[in-house]
Order: sequence, then structure tokens, then C-alpha cells
Amino acid sequence: MREIQLSHGGGGVEMNQLINQLFFRHFGNEILLRGEDAALLPVEGPVAFTTDSFTVSPLFFEGGDIGKLAIAGTVNDLAMMGAKPEYLSCSFIIEEGFPYADLARIVESMATELAKSGARIVCGDTKVVPKGAADKIFINTSGVGTFPLPEQSRGISVRNLKAGDAILVSRDIGSHGACILMARDALQLGSDLKSDCTTLWPQVEALLKAGITPHALRDATRGGLAAVLNEWSSASGVAIELEESAIPVCDPVRGLCELYGFEPHDLANEGTMVLALPAEQAQDALGILRQFNPAASQIGVVQASDRHKVILSNPWGSRRYLELPQGELLPRIC
Amino acid sequence: MREIQLSHGGGGVEMNQLINQLFFRHFGNEILLRGEDAALLPVEGPVAFTTDSFTVSPLFFEGGDIGKLAIAGTVNDLAMMGAKPEYLSCSFIIEEGFPYADLARIVESMATELAKSGARIVCGDTKVVPKGAADKIFINTSGVGTFPLPEQSRGISVRNLKAGDAILVSRDIGSHGACILMARDALQLGSDLKSDCTTLWPQVEALLKAGITPHALRDATRGGLAAVLNEWSSASGVAIELEESAIPVCDPVRGLCELYGFEPHDLANEGTMVLALPAEQAQDALGILRQFNPAASQIGVVQASDRHKVILSNPWGSRRYLELPQGELLPRIC
Repeated sequence: MREIQLSHGGGGVEMNQLINQLFFRHFGNEILLRGEDAALLPVEGPVAFTTDSFTVSPLFFEGGDIGKLAIAGTVNDLAMMGAKPEYLSCSFIIEEGFPYADLARIVESMATELAKSGARIVCGDTKVVPKGAADKIFINTSGVGTFPLPEQSRGISVRNLKAGDAILVSRDIGSHGACILMARDALQLGSDLKSDCTTLWPQVEALLKAGITPHALRDATRGGLAAVLNEWSSASGVAIELEESAIPVCDPVRGLCELYGFEPHDLANEGTMVLALPAEQAQDALGILRQFNPAASQIGVVQASDRHKVILSNPWGSRRYLELPQGELLPRIC
Repeated sequence: MREIQLSHGGGGVEMNQLINQLFFRHFGNEILLRGEDAALLPVEGPVAFTTDSFTVSPLFFEGGDIGKLAIAGTVNDLAMMGAKPEYLSCSFIIEEGFPYADLARIVESMATELAKSGARIVCGDTKVVPKGAADKIFINTSGVGTFPLPEQSRGISVRNLKAGDAILVSRDIGSHGACILMARDALQLGSDLKSDCTTLWPQVEALLKAGITPHALRDATRGGLAAVLNEWSSASGVAIELEESAIPVCDPVRGLCELYGFEPHDLANEGTMVLALPAEQAQDALGILRQFNPAASQIGVVQASDRHKVILSNPWGSRRYLELPQGELLPRIC
């Protein structure tokens, strides 16, 4: 087959062929292949559960594609709870006429990204809509994670920041947003800017195994660093003090931000996490994070305050609030 | 707000408003309101896990709407495993400019349908795509179910049909497909045909509590009765013998099928299940099913055979194979 047809979503012969020849071939595992109405998961204790739909445009970009993003995004939401990503669902909404070769490339990319955490796709759904009813392809992944390290991981929460905590980022920020913007505007800045899109579970697992006890973890997706920190300060009832000069931003992202009047801390990331943890663990945590990316940095501290705000200090001593982003910076970023 | 804007999917101020004012208001529960990256589910044993994306057109039809369908569909996939539907995720892809009033109506309909099984939405996601990138709204729901009645329910499987089993349907077939077809073609047959769209968990729970031990259960969605029975005969390695005259079809569905040249057993259902169970339990099961719908009927039996096919006998003694549907009968049925 060269193109996806309406019949590939019809519940009959053609859909079975697509499932068997493409999805089962790349995602195949004992649970998925049982082919029941729902997958049976052999879990034993509490689980983490999350969902995300992916509508990114363009589908293929520097550093990733919608398939990689759909796996990393959901795996990361689980990892940010300290949960080991184990079982994913995968639901496609495909526009009639979508090239089969592109779908195969996306599915292969999903399989590659799954291998980084060991998570498996255990159930799925395929809908095909008539030409014009959807732009190419949308993917939803939902995920279930377990807690192999229960003691350390169960307290991780948006409400759990404590005065004195160190605030860390796992790498330089904003590259996914900048990369999609460049792809969309066909910009060539002569740079090798790539999306940060990646699975964060290996980093989280390394931190937890080393005895680090994060108070909060979050991947800074839509709304960027600004959205995460504002949510944390408000939910935990604390102030967060940031040193602007300590926030790692690479040159191409900084250049693009100056060109468009954006702030790096508003740009989306898809493989960059923010951490709040006891100050005495900051150096150990940075040591581990820098094995994954040398740009990992401490960017601020948590302070007790009646003002539940995020404050940005610049090197010249001026201070301003870092506000929650407003409006829509860039649609279809993820 | 009168229309959904791109900023409602931006991860900032406007998205938070939409979540708080609409989604949390109607879906609010302790787990959802925690607002973490993933929901923590206090489950203890194995769980069932399923996903479905809904793209139905029109969004509102006789007997339901995309919201009711998105809840019933996923709840039913869990119920068909004998699992109690407990935790659902909900992910919207909304076209820029979609009327807020329609979204509110859909969300209210979802909340009403959730109450029928007691399932709760515990996590979600909202994407807004530019005008023209999606047709109005798509909804993905994924679900996690538990096994409060483990002994009876864990063996239910597409592979579990036994020679001698009775095959039952819980009501007359094909009304969802017929109803969408009528709405799409603006047909008025002077009938009061309604989609069968509904949550099947109360019926499954009543059967299990009465000691019925189904070998297989399935809601006959895309591909209809024909797809379910073909999948069963092939997965269980048996033949299924049906009496055509015993299959309940209401007059408006029969009339529409004659008009369009469709077969009722190929039409989609969204609240109609097929059951395979020990023959000696058939009368008790029918007694329970008829409390929900008087049209519940036994339509056939399972037979040991080397030919893993579905055979349809008509009242004049002729016999033919009931094949898996081919092609696309009707796009965007669910």
C-alpha cells in the first residue's frame, strides 16, 4: 500500500492488515499481541497514569519527529512522578491519503524511542478521517508507570517544594520551541540547532538510584520553564529566586529569541527537566545530570515567602517577576 | 469566552482558565485536582488498560454525541474484559474557533455518562490546532479498570470460546451506524431511530454478580457483529453457527439497510454487546439482559470445527459464510 485509505480505519480486513503488518511488527509484545478489547497489566501496587495528544507541525524536524515526541512526551510525564514508564497506549488519527512510508517511519521512530525506557505499547486504536478533516496525522499516547523505588519517589509533587531547595535544569532550555519555529519559517541560521526531544527516564532512574530525593520534577514542555516554576511556586506556596545569568541558553536559541522578541524561558522543551531538591544534594545531582548533558545547572533557590511568585535577578542587580506565559507563542509545538 | 482560541492550548494563563472553569468543574475529583504530570492511581492488583480516539461526525446525533461516545466507548472496552471501569484520561484536539458552548455541552455529556459506571477522569490534555487543521473536535479517552470479581472475570477472552457455547446479543443491532448514516445524509424516515450509544458496565456487573461466567464479551463497534464473530472464531479456533432470523434488527435499521444495500451485521454499534457463554447459562443471562433491553436474544452456538468460520443459516435452509467486512462502510462513525 502506498497511501492510508479510509478502509484502514474501518474495523475490517484492511485495518487488520495495517495492524498486523506495521504496528504489531514494530511494537509486538506478548500483551499487545493478545488482541483483546483491553490489555491486562500485571501490576501490583499504585500506578501513575497520564495522557498526551501530539499535533506537532512539521511532523519531521531536526532532532526528532511526531513519533519520537509521542513516546518521549508520555514517558517523561510518568518519569516526572518518579514512576518507571512501563505500559503505553497508542492511538492514531490519520488523514486519508497520508503516505504509508511516512507512517512507517513514524512507527519505527516510536519503537526506537520506546527502547530507551523499556516501555511497551500494549494497546492501540487507529482512526482514518477523510481528506481535509485532519492535517496529516495526530497521535495520542497514554501511559501507566510503576514504582520500583517507592520510598524515594512517592513524595515527588508540585506541592512539595521546601524553602531552601535548589532549583536545577537538566540542560540548556528552549531548543524544541526554537527548532520548530525555524522549521516552520524555513529559517537557516547556519546553526546545527536540534530539538531536545528525548526520553528522560534514564536520568531520573540514575538520580533515584544514587539516593537523590527530588521534591519536584517536571519536564518544561508548553509554556517552558516559566510555566513550570509559576505552577510550582503557586502550588507549594513559596517564592522561587532565579539568577538569570545561570539559566543555560545556547547561542542559536538566544539568537532566535532576539530576532523574534521571545524569551527562552517561555519556549517549549521536550527533553529538559526542572528539579527542586534539598540544597545539600545539588552537587551530586548535577554530577549525574552532567553525564547526560554538560549544560545541567543550578538556576535558583526556593524561599519561604507570602508572595508565591518567581523572581528573576539579572547580573546588574535588577529584579523582576517571571510571569506565566500568556497568549499562544507558537501553535502545534507538540 | 465564546470560541476556543489557540491560546487555550498554549500551556499558559488561558489554558489554565479553560481547565479550571470547564474541565475541573465538571470532572473534578481528588485525583484530577492534584494537577501533577501524571495521576496516582491507588490500585492493588492487575488492571485492564485501553484507548480509543473519537472522530465522529456529526458531533451531536440522535441518542448521543461525541462526549457520550468517548466515555461509553472506553468504559465498554474495559467492561468487555470483565473489568470495572475506574480511571479515565481525556485528551481533546480542538479546532481554533470551535464554539465554547458546544465544548461545554460535550463536557457535560461526558460527566453524565461517567456517572453511569462511576468511572472518573483523572488526567487530561488539551491541544488547540489552527483553523482547518482538524475538523471541529477529536477526543481520546484511555481507561484503567480493576477486577473486583476476579474469579469470574479474568478468563474472559477472545480465545476462550468453547464448543457448545451460546452466542447472545444484548439488543437489536446496527442502530449507531444507521443513525449516523441518517444524520449525515439528512434522511428523515419518519422513524425515531436512536444510536444505541451507552455504557455497558451495569449490564456486565449484573451478569457477573448473578454468577454468569462469560467466556467472551465484546461490544460490536466498527465492523459490527460480523467483525466480532469472525475475530472470535479465528482466535478461538471454532466455528460459529448463527440463525439469521434470530438476530434482532429493528424496522428502521432494516429499512435503511435495504435502501443502501448494507447488512445490519456490518453496521457499527456503540452500546450493544455480543456474549459467548456456557449454554446452560443462556436463559439466566437473557433474563438479566432483557431487564436492560427486551430485544436481547440468543443468535447462535459455537461448534468444534476445522473451519474457523461464521456460518449464517436463513429460515429457508440456505447457509453462507458471514465474512469480515471489507472496505469502508462509513467514515467517522466513532
